[in-house]
Amino acid sequence: MDASLLRAAGTALRDSTPLVHCLTNTVVQTITANALLAVGAAPAMVDEPAEAGEFAAVASAVLVNVGTVQQRTAEAMRIAARAADGAGTPWVLDPVAVGGLTFRTELAADLVGLRPTVVRGNASEVLALAGAGKGGRGVDSTATPEDALEAAGELARRTRGVVAVSGPVDVITDGQTVVRVGGGSPLLTRTTGAGCALGAIVAAYVAVAGDLLTGTVAAHAHVALAAEAAAAIAAGPGTFAALWLDALDAVDGGALVRAELH
Amino acid sequence: MDASLLRAAGTALRDSTPLVHCLTNTVVQTITANALLAVGAAPAMVDEPAEAGEFAAVASAVLVNVGTVQQRTAEAMRIAARAADGAGTPWVLDPVAVGGLTFRTELAADLVGLRPTVVRGNASEVLALAGAGKGGRGVDSTATPEDALEAAGELARRTRGVVAVSGPVDVITDGQTVVRVGGGSPLLTRTTGAGCALGAIVAAYVAVAGDLLTGTVAAHAHVALAAEAAAAIAAGPGTFAALWLDALDAVDGGALVRAELH
Amino acid sequence: MDASLLRAAGTALRDSTPLVHCLTNTVVQTITANALLAVGAAPAMVDEPAEAGEFAAVASAVLVNVGTVQQRTAEAMRIAARAADGAGTPWVLDPVAVGGLTFRTELAADLVGLRPTVVRGNASEVLALAGAGKGGRGVDSTATPEDALEAAGELARRTRGVVAVSGPVDVITDGQTVVRVGGGSPLLTRTTGAGCALGAIVAAYVAVAGDLLTGTVAAHAHVALAAEAAAAIAAGPGTFAALWLDALDAVDGGALVRAELH
Repeated sequence: MDASLLRAAGTALRDSTPLVHCLTNTVVQTITANALLAVGAAPAMVDEPAEAGEFAAVASAVLVNVGTVQQRTAEAMRIAARAADGAGTPWVLDPVAVGGLTFRTELAADLVGLRPTVVRGNASEVLALAGAGKGGRGVDSTATPEDALEAAGELARRTRGVVAVSGPVDVITDGQTVVRVGGGSPLLTRTTGAGCALGAIVAAYVAVAGDLLTGTVAAHAHVALAAEAAAAIAAGPGTFAALWLDALDAVDGGALVRAELH
Repeated sequence: MDASLLRAAGTALRDSTPLVHCLTNTVVQTITANALLAVGAAPAMVDEPAEAGEFAAVASAVLVNVGTVQQRTAEAMRIAARAADGAGTPWVLDPVAVGGLTFRTELAADLVGLRPTVVRGNASEVLALAGAGKGGRGVDSTATPEDALEAAGELARRTRGVVAVSGPVDVITDGQTVVRVGGGSPLLTRTTGAGCALGAIVAAYVAVAGDLLTGTVAAHAHVALAAEAAAAIAAGPGTFAALWLDALDAVDGGALVRAELH
Repeated sequence: MDASLLRAAGTALRDSTPLVHCLTNTVVQTITANALLAVGAAPAMVDEPAEAGEFAAVASAVLVNVGTVQQRTAEAMRIAARAADGAGTPWVLDPVAVGGLTFRTELAADLVGLRPTVVRGNASEVLALAGAGKGGRGVDSTATPEDALEAAGELARRTRGVVAVSGPVDVITDGQTVVRVGGGSPLLTRTTGAGCALGAIVAAYVAVAGDLLTGTVAAHAHVALAAEAAAAIAAGPGTFAALWLDALDAVDGGALVRAELH
C-alpha cells in the first residue's frame, strides 16, 4: 500500500469529525472516548437497547466491543449492528476474549453473521472467531498475527470486509491483499484499553476513508506512530497513557506517510 | 456578581467536604470522582435502585447525569431525585444528549418535573429540555449559550432553580439575574467527562454555598480557572486531563476572585 | 515479618503473571486494570452471571469489590465466589461502603459466609463486616485501623483467612499474627480507585505467594512504596495517579525489602 493514501485518510478524518457510536466495555470507555477526541472524531457511548438502534442509524460508524458484555448490552449490540447494516453505516467488531467464554463466543458468532465491516482483534480472538482456535485468556493472545493470517483471510472473504490482527506487527487483510503495520511500542500492551481504542479509531477512519483497507491501515498506523512518540518520552505505563493521547492528537495526515508498512 | 462571594463559597467547600451522590454515566465516573476529590468534596457513585434512595437521603447533594442511562439506572435516578427532594437536598440534572434520543428525552422531561435545583448542559441540551430545540448529536452542541439564554431563563423560572449553559463563555441564570463566566480552555472539550465533572462540582458547591446562583457560578469559575492553569503547561489533551485535576486541587477560595465574570 | 519474604513474593509475581478475575465497580475498573498490568499481573473484568463462574474457575485469583454493585453483578459475585471456592482459587473481598447501605451489607454478609481468602477494606467497613460497627459514608472511614484491630482478628479467625485494614498505617492479620505496613502517601486517598486497586493487587500476590499473610503484606508494601516514589515528584493528585502507575511498574521484589513494616 502506498503511504500517500494514508495522508488523504488522515486529512479526511480531521476535516469531517465523524460521530462514532461505541458499544464497548466499561473498562475502556474513557480511554476510547479520549482517543477518538484526540484523532479528531466525536465519540458517543450508547448501549441501552432502547437507544442503540436510533443512535446507530445516525452515527458515522459503529463500534461493537464485547469486552464486558452482558445480556442487556448484547441485545443493544445486535440492534446496533442491524441498524448500521440497514443504514449502510460501517461497523467494527472487536471480539475481546472470544473463544474462551461461551456466552460471548456465541454472541460474536451471531454478530459475524451480520457481516461486520471490519473485525479487529488479537490472533487468538481472530482464530476463535474464524472457528480455527479456542481463544486466549482474557485479552491476552497466545498466538501471533502470522499464525492467524489464513484464518483472517478466510474470515474477511466470508464477511466481505476487512480483518485486522493486532500484534508487534499488525496484519490487515481484505481477503486478497495483506498489509502489515510495524512500529508501535510494547507499552501499548501495558495500557488497558489501547487495543480497544484502536478498534474505535478504525471505526472513525473507515467512516471517512475512500476504501476499507486504507482506512483500517491508517488507523493502525496512527496508533503505532503515536505510541512510538509517546514511548520515547514516557517514564512508565502511567505517563505513557497520557502522552499517547497527546501524540494521537499530534499525528495528522502528513505524519501518517512515515508509517512502517510492509 | 461580586467575585468576593465566590471566595466564601470556595472556602466553605474546602471546610465542609460535602458528600456528593453521583448517578452518572460510566464513561466519566472516574474523572468525576477525581474532580470532586480535587475540589475538596467526597464522591460516591450509587446507581442501583435498591440503594439510590437510601443514599440520596444522607448525601449533601445529588448529581443525575443521563449520559449512559439504561432502564435500571433511569429508575434509580427517579428514586434519587425524589429522595433528594424529600430531604431538601439540592440535586443537579445534566441532560447529556437529550433531544436527540427518545428514551432519555422522556426521562429528562420527567426529571424536570421533579424540579432539579440546577440544570447544567450545553446549549442544544438546554434548548431541548426547555422544549425549544431538537438537541445535538451526543455531547456536541450546535447552538451557542447565548442562543439558549431565553430558554434557560424560562426553564429556571419553571423549576424555580438555576440553569447553566456551558460554552466558550458559560451563561448561568436563575431566571432573573444572568451571570457569564469566561476563561477556561478549548482543551476542556477535548477531554471526555470535563463537562460532566463540572456538573458534579456544581452539586458540591450548591451543597455549601449561601445561595444557588453563587454556588453554580463558583463551580464554573473553579473549573475555568483550573483549565487555564492546566492549558498553560499541557502538551496535549492527555497531559491536560491530569494537570487539570492538579489545578482543580490548587484553586481555593482566594483564587476564585480572579474569575472572569461578565 | 522478615522483609526478605516479600522479595520472594515480588519475584514470584513478576515471573508468573497471574490472571486476576475482577468483579469490581465501574468507577475504578480502569485504574485497577492498569495497576494489575503495572505490577505484572493480567487483569480481566468479567461480571456477567453467564460468564462469571466459567471465568473464575480458570483464573489465578478473583477480586470481588461491591463498590457499584447491582442485582446482576451481585449474582455474578456469588457465582464467582463459589466457583473460586470450588476450584481452590484464592479470592479477595473488598466491602466498599458496607455498613452504610442495606443491599450491599446483606450481600457482603453472604459473601463472608463463603469465606473470602482475604478481606481488604477501611476500618469502618471491616467493623461493619465483622458486625461491630455501622460503616462509614461511601468510601470514607471515620474509624482508624487500630480501632478495627480486634474486629479484624475475629473476622480472620471466622473466615480462616487474612483481613487487611487500610489506613495511614495498614493493619493486616490472619487472626494470630499482626503486621503493620507504614509509608505510602495521603495522595492515595485523593485518587479514586487506589484502595480498590490495592484489593486487586492483593489478589495477584496471594495467587503466587507462599502464604496468605506474606502475599497480603507484600501487596500493601508494593502500593505504599510506589505511592512514596510518586508523591515525591507529583504536582498534585492528577499527575500522582499516572506516576503511581509508573512506580508500581518500577517496584520489584528487591525494592520490597525496603518496606516499612512494624
